Amino acid sequence: MDFVGEINEKGVLEQRFDLKVGSEVVPGILWRPADRLEGVPTVLIGHGGTQHKRVPNVVGLARRFVRHLGFAAVAIDAPGHGDRVKDPDAAERMRGRLERQIAAGPTGRPFEIPPEEAKAWVERTKRGVAEWKALVDELPSVGLSGPYGYWGVSMGTAIGLPFVASEPRISAAVLGLAGLGNRPGRQAFEAAARSLRVPILFIFQWDDELMNRESGTALFDAIGSNEKTMHINPGGHVSTPLFERDDYDLFFKRHLAG
Amino acid sequence: MDFVGEINEKGVLEQRFDLKVGSEVVPGILWRPADRLEGVPTVLIGHGGTQHKRVPNVVGLARRFVRHLGFAAVAIDAPGHGDRVKDPDAAERMRGRLERQIAAGPTGRPFEIPPEEAKAWVERTKRGVAEWKALVDELPSVGLSGPYGYWGVSMGTAIGLPFVASEPRISAAVLGLAGLGNRPGRQAFEAAARSLRVPILFIFQWDDELMNRESGTALFDAIGSNEKTMHINPGGHVSTPLFERDDYDLFFKRHLAG
Repeated sequence: MDFVGEINEKGVLEQRFDLKVGSEVVPGILWRPADRLEGVPTVLIGHGGTQHKRVPNVVGLARRFVRHLGFAAVAIDAPGHGDRVKDPDAAERMRGRLERQIAAGPTGRPFEIPPEEAKAWVERTKRGVAEWKALVDELPSVGLSGPYGYWGVSMGTAIGLPFVASEPRISAAVLGLAGLGNRPGRQAFEAAARSLRVPILFIFQWDDELMNRESGTALFDAIGSNEKTMHINPGGHVSTPLFERDDYDLFFKRHLAG
Repeated sequence: MDFVGEINEKGVLEQRFDLKVGSEVVPGILWRPADRLEGVPTVLIGHGGTQHKRVPNVVGLARRFVRHLGFAAVAIDAPGHGDRVKDPDAAERMRGRLERQIAAGPTGRPFEIPPEEAKAWVERTKRGVAEWKALVDELPSVGLSGPYGYWGVSMGTAIGLPFVASEPRISAAVLGLAGLGNRPGRQAFEAAARSLRVPILFIFQWDDELMNRESGTALFDAIGSNEKTMHINPGGHVSTPLFERDDYDLFFKRHLAG
């Protein structure tokens, strides 16, 4: 991890870094208490589709994990997102398609990925998982030796669920806004869900325009962990109530704090 | 409310009282901070079927509402429960029937109330609602002028949901372990759920031996409140994880604290 800049804001030190993974440079941000690192748990935050490492939701979560829990938090740009967008027109088309589907309201059917894009989605998940693992490899070198948790919903679950399932260093995860549906690579995704053993908080929107209810409860059912809780709220994909953030605090405090 | 005894334990004052409602004497317990009442919110706690006002779950919740939140809490024996059991053999038969159904595991069908008992269930609900209202009438006279919340699952929801729906002095409620199912008085119960407007935290067990999933999500759907959250955990009717208590604290703090 090469640190390339930092800001200290009200006791939260925000450090920009670049992480080399194979031939790619993955830009990321580390948020941490300004005064200590010893024994500090870290929450990895995976952003949603069309978003990036510094959207308000990610920054807000990261800062509260530092301020409320005394933890560190880290976010990276997912493949093809944020500073890693290689085809801005394609990124805009995807954003437009998601925004239109959200504006149209719930259809009762999961969001359809065009068949010609399925391979790219599977490839992005594979690459995203490898990058998170590379990041966890590096964290001890900056003084963050765990425990580690993961927070990521929507695309943050598409990438994060197989990551958490295949990464024994992650002790607990918040996932959600996702279903089994007919996603590309569904079989591998479902197998990963069934293999999960760590505590999972799974948040879901009952009127999600990109999901349906059956798909969400099927994913919750598939999760193999003994401790798993599903929080359902009314409203659409981008309307998770802010009070759920208090539950992320509670959940990570319960599972990661010493 | 006639106070008939009190214990002061670690700053929690526990006061036994009798409340006269019509020709009935309803025994209850008030838990409160020992040092003040001014502006203190109160949570009404409705116990489950076969239980009473002083089962460990009720006492544990009441004490934590006092200790964690600085609130008061109050519980009464439901009609035919606790000190109000009039037919001990019938009460034992009901307890045995519930215990056997729980021991048998999930059937995928809601618990069946024998037709000859349906009228008594409806009557108990009606009486239970009237008694809670009578209690709220009395609370200001002991210095507890609200705001008021309600906590009650299983039979505590069977009685509590129509109570909260018909009682504008209740500002928020935790309900759960209940479904629409084929309960006696289902139509009135569903209508009450649809008329709810206050924030509801609805907890549900995904493998509840006395419910099925469809019945639970149907009740959650029926609840008319804009703010409603369903928490689903794996396991049976009496296996709600203890960590949900942290959520009761958060919920009542958010809605009742000044």
